Amino acid sequence: MTEPADLAERVREGDLRIHELEEHADYDTAVAARRLVVEGETGTELDSIGDYGFPAEAAEPNIENMIGAAQIPMGIVGPVAVNGEATAATDGGAADGEYYLPLATTEGALLASVNRGLGVIRDADGATARVTKNGMTRAPVFRVDGVAEAARTVEWVADNLDALRERAESTTSHGELLDVEPYVVADSVFLRFAYDTKDAMGMNMATIATGEACELVEAETPASLVALSGNLCSDKKPAAINAVEGRGRSVTADVLVPGELVEDRLHTTPEAIAEANTRKNLTGSAKAGALGFNAHAANVVAAAFLATGQDEAQVVEAANTITTMEAREREDGTTDLYASVSLASLEVGTVGGGTKLPTQSEALEVLGLRGGGDPAGSNADALAEIIAVGTLAGELSLLAALASRHLASAHEDLGR
Amino acid sequence: MTEPADLAERVREGDLRIHELEEHADYDTAVAARRLVVEGETGTELDSIGDYGFPAEAAEPNIENMIGAAQIPMGIVGPVAVNGEATAATDGGAADGEYYLPLATTEGALLASVNRGLGVIRDADGATARVTKNGMTRAPVFRVDGVAEAARTVEWVADNLDALRERAESTTSHGELLDVEPYVVADSVFLRFAYDTKDAMGMNMATIATGEACELVEAETPASLVALSGNLCSDKKPAAINAVEGRGRSVTADVLVPGELVEDRLHTTPEAIAEANTRKNLTGSAKAGALGFNAHAANVVAAAFLATGQDEAQVVEAANTITTMEAREREDGTTDLYASVSLASLEVGTVGGGTKLPTQSEALEVLGLRGGGDPAGSNADALAEIIAVGTLAGELSLLAALASRHLASAHEDLGR
Amino acid sequence: MTEPADLAERVREGDLRIHELEEHADYDTAVAARRLVVEGETGTELDSIGDYGFPAEAAEPNIENMIGAAQIPMGIVGPVAVNGEATAATDGGAADGEYYLPLATTEGALLASVNRGLGVIRDADGATARVTKNGMTRAPVFRVDGVAEAARTVEWVADNLDALRERAESTTSHGELLDVEPYVVADSVFLRFAYDTKDAMGMNMATIATGEACELVEAETPASLVALSGNLCSDKKPAAINAVEGRGRSVTADVLVPGELVEDRLHTTPEAIAEANTRKNLTGSAKAGALGFNAHAANVVAAAFLATGQDEAQVVEAANTITTMEAREREDGTTDLYASVSLASLEVGTVGGGTKLPTQSEALEVLGLRGGGDPAGSNADALAEIIAVGTLAGELSLLAALASRHLASAHEDLGR
Amino acid sequence: MTEPADLAERVREGDLRIHELEEHADYDTAVAARRLVVEGETGTELDSIGDYGFPAEAAEPNIENMIGAAQIPMGIVGPVAVNGEATAATDGGAADGEYYLPLATTEGALLASVNRGLGVIRDADGATARVTKNGMTRAPVFRVDGVAEAARTVEWVADNLDALRERAESTTSHGELLDVEPYVVADSVFLRFAYDTKDAMGMNMATIATGEACELVEAETPASLVALSGNLCSDKKPAAINAVEGRGRSVTADVLVPGELVEDRLHTTPEAIAEANTRKNLTGSAKAGALGFNAHAANVVAAAFLATGQDEAQVVEAANTITTMEAREREDGTTDLYASVSLASLEVGTVGGGTKLPTQSEALEVLGLRGGGDPAGSNADALAEIIAVGTLAGELSLLAALASRHLASAHEDLGR
Repeated sequence: MTEPADLAERVREGDLRIHELEEHADYDTAVAARRLVVEGETGTELDSIGDYGFPAEAAEPNIENMIGAAQIPMGIVGPVAVNGEATAATDGGAADGEYYLPLATTEGALLASVNRGLGVIRDADGATARVTKNGMTRAPVFRVDGVAEAARTVEWVADNLDALRERAESTTSHGELLDVEPYVVADSVFLRFAYDTKDAMGMNMATIATGEACELVEAETPASLVALSGNLCSDKKPAAINAVEGRGRSVTADVLVPGELVEDRLHTTPEAIAEANTRKNLTGSAKAGALGFNAHAANVVAAAFLATGQDEAQVVEAANTITTMEAREREDGTTDLYASVSLASLEVGTVGGGTKLPTQSEALEVLGLRGGGDPAGSNADALAEIIAVGTLAGELSLLAALASRHLASAHEDLGR
Repeated sequence: MTEPADLAERVREGDLRIHELEEHADYDTAVAARRLVVEGETGTELDSIGDYGFPAEAAEPNIENMIGAAQIPMGIVGPVAVNGEATAATDGGAADGEYYLPLATTEGALLASVNRGLGVIRDADGATARVTKNGMTRAPVFRVDGVAEAARTVEWVADNLDALRERAESTTSHGELLDVEPYVVADSVFLRFAYDTKDAMGMNMATIATGEACELVEAETPASLVALSGNLCSDKKPAAINAVEGRGRSVTADVLVPGELVEDRLHTTPEAIAEANTRKNLTGSAKAGALGFNAHAANVVAAAFLATGQDEAQVVEAANTITTMEAREREDGTTDLYASVSLASLEVGTVGGGTKLPTQSEALEVLGLRGGGDPAGSNADALAEIIAVGTLAGELSLLAALASRHLASAHEDLGR
Repeated sequence: MTEPADLAERVREGDLRIHELEEHADYDTAVAARRLVVEGETGTELDSIGDYGFPAEAAEPNIENMIGAAQIPMGIVGPVAVNGEATAATDGGAADGEYYLPLATTEGALLASVNRGLGVIRDADGATARVTKNGMTRAPVFRVDGVAEAARTVEWVADNLDALRERAESTTSHGELLDVEPYVVADSVFLRFAYDTKDAMGMNMATIATGEACELVEAETPASLVALSGNLCSDKKPAAINAVEGRGRSVTADVLVPGELVEDRLHTTPEAIAEANTRKNLTGSAKAGALGFNAHAANVVAAAFLATGQDEAQVVEAANTITTMEAREREDGTTDLYASVSLASLEVGTVGGGTKLPTQSEALEVLGLRGGGDPAGSNADALAEIIAVGTLAGELSLLAALASRHLASAHEDLGR
Repeated sequence: MTEPADLAERVREGDLRIHELEEHADYDTAVAARRLVVEGETGTELDSIGDYGFPAEAAEPNIENMIGAAQIPMGIVGPVAVNGEATAATDGGAADGEYYLPLATTEGALLASVNRGLGVIRDADGATARVTKNGMTRAPVFRVDGVAEAARTVEWVADNLDALRERAESTTSHGELLDVEPYVVADSVFLRFAYDTKDAMGMNMATIATGEACELVEAETPASLVALSGNLCSDKKPAAINAVEGRGRSVTADVLVPGELVEDRLHTTPEAIAEANTRKNLTGSAKAGALGFNAHAANVVAAAFLATGQDEAQVVEAANTITTMEAREREDGTTDLYASVSLASLEVGTVGGGTKLPTQSEALEVLGLRGGGDPAGSNADALAEIIAVGTLAGELSLLAALASRHLASAHEDLGR
């Protein structure tokens, strides 16, 4: 049996390359050997990184050149109370009931803050959340000869949607092509393909399906593919196209908090929270030239993404979130607080990506959302709705803290 | 001695609240008890989440309601070759030499891709990187009576910068107030405080110092604080103010890759890569209404952030990155590839936040950047420069893959 | 007969209000009387303003409280050479041939610059231009009870497009409703109606038709109209939604300029122009957080708008223009310059608005585009294409000037 | 004496070129001849365009290839009531008193709407306005060898501000260099020069002065000028840098309108107007990815620009305006309306550009702001403040109309 030390020695001697170790030993041995190499080269001890709790082979779809795992503290918030039942006038949501939401983060005070907001939401009889749009996008860019050919290509696409759909869907058993939207910049033609990828976040599914459809475009038109992603997708970049048109799930959540609750639990008033929100999240973000009009949506989303195996870089577009807070007058002259968040582009899945890794899989199981939903897509929808309510709780709590001027001291106490 | 099961029982009976457990037992027992509660409530087993490799107390500054840890696969890329030496005409950088860079991610193919780019950079005699601006910001919003008072407040701030600095710096032994920039929207006055926070990412330091300075503003002017953060900071939101003016470190890296290397190693040409970059990262992002003009900077940054204990939600502003690729003609008529990335707002630290956690601390040690630098700030500068070069490698590799049309098939092979 | 002096006296005495004068005299007398009042109040003489060359009544649809006219110098550029013929592979454009383009401006050097560019375009055998998208938009905002109702409203709209079309089109003999796109922000639902308004710019047509359709939405759903324009239209505001999705005409124009022409006429090289464009219009605009990636598209558009009776405030969205410049290698190793402009949101008409006023009507006649086209919409399409080529000429000329460093001196010579 | 017909004949025969006519006759004869040529070529009669009311020579700094003038209907609104007096707590503004504001437009209903708003402002005892920032910018882009040299260049600029100022100011008798802000994108260095250009809009002054300063940069550093404007200026483009940092004047205006006035004169309530503003101008613009958070600021600015000889293409950046509307509770429980506009980048002058033309000069005289102010800059400041109050009136009136649902019918009645 090969020992890690022997393999490491062979790397040092130039006999093996560091990324080839898995070809010469089982995965865990390869990982140990690689760690030895790095320890030797850098004079460090990587005991904690090496102390991971799963067979290295399980992470093979997720990483190359593995040396171990990062451990990010995980906590729990909740219950997250979501009202998802249908009514006479409205359809139901995918999430309905009370959920514990695992969050992984290194930001002190975050879970305490979200939990405070969730408590208020529970006492307000829960929040409502809905996915209002769904489509994972991939937008290749083609080169054409000039603007006349660009105009012609746009027409061809409009006339051949069915053929494009057939080709795209031939690569996937679950995904459905929803739309292809063309954009022209002179001799560059961008086609934004949008898919229903069900319970998968779906970036890879959309990429593969689009790659297949591109072959049809190239075969039937003079357009020539330059890049399978032309940045109108737009993946992991701050881009208005996502904030306006959505990507992944567009999800929105709201709650009506009685004025007494605001005062008793948040130690401020609906009016003060509404004012803080208007000056900070609306006017301040407007003045900042922002695509995100919220207090710290990215904090909650990032922590939920880490816990549940989502793509951590997609926190970027999750931050395209608008928070509103309104003091609503009651007939008796007192006011309640209407609070909402609208996440334009939240990309989540309960299958694929990092969702199968052990801690991530357990976290999804805590939510009752591990694996594919029934109907397909319902688990990812529910995950989106629960994260939206968690985000709403974070906004409520932070805005209340700001309104009562506790931010700095809260960090002094909890954050260090 | 208290057993986790006993504590969990007391929570179930309503005798204790779930966030109070640390008050009744040592941290690890409290964490175990909390996990038992969640397991009971949700019918799950959280063995993997509970299998964390550090004393729970070590994570006390980073999380509340802890139940364990998320384990994210970590790998290694490198060496990252950085040319940091000073020359007759230019000053040196903070990083200089070869570094192994740990990355934690669940995105298959990412490390392989970055590693490919880093190999090319090494063969091109290394990349150059420089921090060109540094300032962690916090921007409170004040209410004034109207525009006349707003104009007066702006003047007062200009006249009292020294007094503001004295107050702000009274709260910190390391931080320095660099500037206070006022912005007016009618009866809202925003003051953007910028600090040199040395080796700390510095968000908390900036918040506390600004809170203190706000007291002076309120005492000496009619302005009244509405929120200690008014979103012109702008923390964890996609915002032009960060892309334009920077936040944390503005860092830029470049490399000149000989044409032969592009062909031999990346299987394409400088011209093809330049075209893909122009149509995708410049024209495509322009058409998308983007603040990020890059291929996947957020991927590399997110993975480096997770590995080294940075704030994962600040990936949002790290994505404000511009990538350029240019085919540069040589005298003999052949071309080289000039490649660069410019990250406007990369917020990093080597002290504070999640940097002390065991796996994160080890990862920083692999880089030789654990703790404070000498001079102060140099470790965080170096971390910024190394991440920038890693990002450059990722851009190079992905653009080369797109230029040679391999994206879909690369994901098919590696990504699943 | 009433004399202006008598009417002015009655205004001074408080017997008449200044906006009521047209009720007591013919229009020109009323205008003269109003001018007398202003002259008296301000101690000025308004002889030039009063020296307008059309019956005041002709301007009645365009202005209230008229005192005369502003006179803006108008010049002529051209011929603008447009290749609009169809080919085997591509459809034709609306403009085809050579056009004189009137421009009204106070910016010295502008016409000379555009004319230089147009000369180069002529010598390069003309430019090509195409309208690639067409739709005038109006986006009312509705209040709903909360997110569940918002989701339901979105579904209702999708299910009732035909009914909405019928109602909207009942108000117009020419306009066609193309699409209704819903956007949700919590309890606000925005519906972006897009119309083909043929040869009219169509803002009023779209507003009236949408107003009618809103009555159906309010009658059939719980949604309540808050404002007939909810800013997702978005009229006369810099907004990514227009830059991404277009408004009015999306029009793009290009030309391939032989390298010799660039050197002989523009005194620089394709490479130098391409570099100036990349660093300024792409990289510079990217760094500026811009929605416009051009040199001075607004200059040409504003001057053409003034001359031809367009809405001068819509220069705002016309500035959402991307300019590209590429040095294209020929087989013999020399290079040509491929130059293009893409105006995402150019709102023009040849009927309605200011197009009937005498000088404006003459200017449209110079273009051969006065009144409605045959087929309907073709005159406005042609105007868009010609303005696009004029804009292209302005970009070519200014970038060439920058590339050869003549901007400052050009202004010194011509601009004063 | 040369007759127009003879000159036109020589052009037709190819003996003269159309732009050379002024070399062979007095200006008016040349203009007449050019018109004859265009009439002949296009089969049109240009009597109205030829009926301009000033010596053509007077327009020589403003246009080339002149054929006449566009006549845009001009009306008058006002009085514009501005409270500019200093108080114990606040400094005064540049405008103080009542002003008639000339507006030139072809948009029916605009003046009536603004006038309605101005009436309300007068009855509310006037509006307050202040210029809170002033600086005309020009931002050249330089090429450097790479990022190390870029970092070095930034340092050089910081160390040599005085020398840059000396060079820049050597070209101007009035202008003052306020600041030079560097921005780096890899091997492109942008330097944003900001000037106090007093009563001139100042674009040409800033361009010439910056051109001179660039020579110093090139002489003393390895940086090489690529374009005198690198789009971080940013002139006539929609760009966040202007919305955030300002360009020309940043000016803000507000008014407190008693609730009774809102009801009596605007037929709605402070609450309804505030709601319309929040959903449309804040939330709607946020969702649209906008840099302008207003209803129709560009309308009023464009009309004032045309009347007073400003640069009509700079309406683009004037649209970077934020409107706020707040229902403010009084002690007796009733509410007033606090209304404001903040124009981040309003570029105006009372000398230079089109301000000397006859109708424009008269319009400035109506305002009492013709020519340079005492102290220098005060006339342009006052013009900015008055336009801001006019814009505020337009916002008030349109939002009130929307709130009371009259937009469509108002256009039906007035707009045609």
